[in-house]
Amino acid sequence: MTGKFISFEGPDGAGKTTALNTIVADLKPQLKKQLIVTREPGGNRISEAIRDIILDRQNTEMDDRTEALLYAAARRQHIVETIEPALKANKLVLCDRYIDSSVAYQGAGREIGEQEVYQMNLFATAGLLPDLTIYFDVPSEIGLQRIMTHRTDEINRLDVEQLSFHKRVRASYLKLAKENPKRIKLVDATQSKGKVVSDVETIIRKTNSEFFNESGE
Amino acid sequence: MTGKFISFEGPDGAGKTTALNTIVADLKPQLKKQLIVTREPGGNRISEAIRDIILDRQNTEMDDRTEALLYAAARRQHIVETIEPALKANKLVLCDRYIDSSVAYQGAGREIGEQEVYQMNLFATAGLLPDLTIYFDVPSEIGLQRIMTHRTDEINRLDVEQLSFHKRVRASYLKLAKENPKRIKLVDATQSKGKVVSDVETIIRKTNSEFFNESGE
Repeated sequence: MTGKFISFEGPDGAGKTTALNTIVADLKPQLKKQLIVTREPGGNRISEAIRDIILDRQNTEMDDRTEALLYAAARRQHIVETIEPALKANKLVLCDRYIDSSVAYQGAGREIGEQEVYQMNLFATAGLLPDLTIYFDVPSEIGLQRIMTHRTDEINRLDVEQLSFHKRVRASYLKLAKENPKRIKLVDATQSKGKVVSDVETIIRKTNSEFFNESGE
Repeated sequence: MTGKFISFEGPDGAGKTTALNTIVADLKPQLKKQLIVTREPGGNRISEAIRDIILDRQNTEMDDRTEALLYAAARRQHIVETIEPALKANKLVLCDRYIDSSVAYQGAGREIGEQEVYQMNLFATAGLLPDLTIYFDVPSEIGLQRIMTHRTDEINRLDVEQLSFHKRVRASYLKLAKENPKRIKLVDATQSKGKVVSDVETIIRKTNSEFFNESGE
């Protein structure tokens, strides 16, 4: 496969998805090759059906491991139907969340175990890891605050639980970044939106120069 | 958990399910403790919904690994909702197919890799293995013949493919039995139905004497 695979990671509230839209608009005209943006479940029939089971609010009895396996199954089908064909067609693939989200959220956040979730997901990906991962880092307090902008009531027990959940998630992302310095690049997402976008674009251009027109800067 | 967990394994056509019914009828009156018979998906909402996706004939594009992950997710939920509660309630649990089916059918039959499928399923089971596994062994030719009793046409290409698939499955079961001699007991399923049933009952009584009334023989 001759394309390149870039994943975007980080907590909700880190501005990841908004930044991604700007980055695509900026980079597209400068690219020699095609670019696709995708995220799980990715619009295929099977992954969407799996996602429906995960999100069905009636399924309150769902075990954490069941959920992790369902996410991995949806991931597998998204890889086979979307990511692999794009890579084979020599495209630049930008994917909003991938394996590191599972490790951080299910492994650390839900405390299933990071190594266990990672290994299980290697089955799902058959070893396909991103060439580059951009991790949007924000302190958990700021991330949570951004999600809860509409909230005005005082912090309650649930918020405290949420905060410790998000702290486990962030610690896990930071550990992944430390353990995979070549693949995972950390961007300080507490900066202005413009600076975050320009940091990400610099990293992508530097590590994927073969995809850009020489005039592209 | 103080109950006992027994799985029944083997190819379709080995007479496993029929034998299981007779065994339950024979053993129930002799037991001091409760017995339940179950098989995946096991009747719970989530596993049934997962099974619907697997069996949906429209999903022809389903990848083998996606399918293996979905079976594992259904297995997990069946464990949490059925097997673990029964074991905690001190029951004898007889389960028609479990982890070895995945290793043999998906790992070997579909050639995903036995070790990979086993490891992924250890995530699903969180390490819960049967205390005892009865493996109904039949040569692949006989097993296939029993499935195809209604077929009268000559052997075609598909049958040849099916035969090599079933031979991989059997070889995998035999390997599992050899590697796990304490857990997996092989029963020669080419014998008469009566002899197969009595062999299985002897093994169950011998390895689970604490579940039987002393008069039970």
